[in-house]
Amino acid sequence: MANEFRYKRRVQFSETDLAGIVHFANMFRYVEEAEHALWREVGISIVQRGSDIGWPRLNAALEFRNPLRFEEEFEVWVRIAELKTRTIEYEFTLVRGKSVIAVGTMTTICVRRQADGTMRAAEIPDEVAEKLEPYAAEPEI
Amino acid sequence: MANEFRYKRRVQFSETDLAGIVHFANMFRYVEEAEHALWREVGISIVQRGSDIGWPRLNAALEFRNPLRFEEEFEVWVRIAELKTRTIEYEFTLVRGKSVIAVGTMTTICVRRQADGTMRAAEIPDEVAEKLEPYAAEPEI
Amino acid sequence: MANEFRYKRRVQFSETDLAGIVHFANMFRYVEEAEHALWREVGISIVQRGSDIGWPRLNAALEFRNPLRFEEEFEVWVRIAELKTRTIEYEFTLVRGKSVIAVGTMTTICVRRQADGTMRAAEIPDEVAEKLEPYAAEPEI
Amino acid sequence: MANEFRYKRRVQFSETDLAGIVHFANMFRYVEEAEHALWREVGISIVQRGSDIGWPRLNAALEFRNPLRFEEEFEVWVRIAELKTRTIEYEFTLVRGKSVIAVGTMTTICVRRQADGTMRAAEIPDEVAEKLEPYAAEPEI
Repeated sequence: MANEFRYKRRVQFSETDLAGIVHFANMFRYVEEAEHALWREVGISIVQRGSDIGWPRLNAALEFRNPLRFEEEFEVWVRIAELKTRTIEYEFTLVRGKSVIAVGTMTTICVRRQADGTMRAAEIPDEVAEKLEPYAAEPEI
Repeated sequence: MANEFRYKRRVQFSETDLAGIVHFANMFRYVEEAEHALWREVGISIVQRGSDIGWPRLNAALEFRNPLRFEEEFEVWVRIAELKTRTIEYEFTLVRGKSVIAVGTMTTICVRRQADGTMRAAEIPDEVAEKLEPYAAEPEI
Repeated sequence: MANEFRYKRRVQFSETDLAGIVHFANMFRYVEEAEHALWREVGISIVQRGSDIGWPRLNAALEFRNPLRFEEEFEVWVRIAELKTRTIEYEFTLVRGKSVIAVGTMTTICVRRQADGTMRAAEIPDEVAEKLEPYAAEPEI
Repeated sequence: MANEFRYKRRVQFSETDLAGIVHFANMFRYVEEAEHALWREVGISIVQRGSDIGWPRLNAALEFRNPLRFEEEFEVWVRIAELKTRTIEYEFTLVRGKSVIAVGTMTTICVRRQADGTMRAAEIPDEVAEKLEPYAAEPEI
């Protein structure tokens, strides 16, 4: 069974809005932070200096179930729903204590930057795929 | 047929990230800005001082088709896909020239803040529903 | 001698800009995070539910000495330069390893929200002043 | 006498915090937006694709006089206090109607990125200096 990575975080003041709760766009920052922490956990970084590989997002979606407030501690649980040849689909659950704050998905695609600055879909480097596999629901076949 | 509201915007430096493009979480800020501009367009504000009404998000989702870069001008096209008794479902298309940058949806729910600070779903005030109706695909029945 | 509080942090992707380094405005978020962590350290919160006390900023200034990059770990060192009747002046040093990233100051003022929504300067509550005193360079006389 | 550039802006929801006002760190984004709008006004961009020139900040400081709230329209007035060989010192005044919201300064330095990724101070290109001069209090001597 796939592993799940858990990222701990505390809500910062600047992440709230006048409604007194975390602004929903910041929830997408939280899931990205968890993604990058998962990569570090397995010994890789989403940014490789001098590399022409990049990881733009294809899509991101969250359902919001409960508000999150200043100074509350919460966790982002990350699983890889699908680790394909060129894309990674993540599943996230944001949890505070026993409350689910949000659930959602994000798909990122491996690209190579071309000489003209555009990006072209590329195969995920083996090193990355191997490191992430323990967190993937179904290993790539 | 429902009207579509078009919100014009320019990418700011602080909205980009080290990949040289707009960070995806900021795209969610852009669609919210367009939502609020639509409300202003019809003469209402999403924030009513002294009111106990609020508009938290139930969900938000974007598909990203093309990158957006510093200083580029773009538009967010907003339509209301469904104007229900308690919720509003928006549809967005982000466009730069002839390129679609992103498409997506967001659902917001009308709530009343209770004395204990919690929020409870409430009917959308008539004044708000009437003002938004021209932008709704199917008027509430 | 006054204590110094040290807040540890890692740079997140969304905090960088197209120049490949942390956007300078985010450095001001970092120092605020450190301020709030110091308050938690001494057992208080800058936000008291149901209180009419607030802590807006009078000024904030940073000098930038070295860039900070994605995933780098750094610390914010906080001292209270002056703890006055109504204001708190903080001094900050942002440090990564042996490099000073930035130094600066921020002054915050204690206010009470009036019935009409405006804010009026107020004396810092004794409980807050006593808790912060160990971090103040010169105890208020 | 030096010209002053005026940049118009409206406060967005995501720029407020739980105190119900614009978070102070966002004021630094506003002044940067005004700086970049001034550059566009004179026909240049702070980002030149393919150039090794960059403009990191040396310092930034703001004094806050009045709060700014959701949907309020305001202006950032920009002047160049000093246009030196390698640095530009800006002065800003944020104004809403007849109220001064904030005043402050920011110094930016012209750098060239070296082959090893570090940055070295460089002379401001003539084209840039000439274009900005009408907004400079004292032309460089």
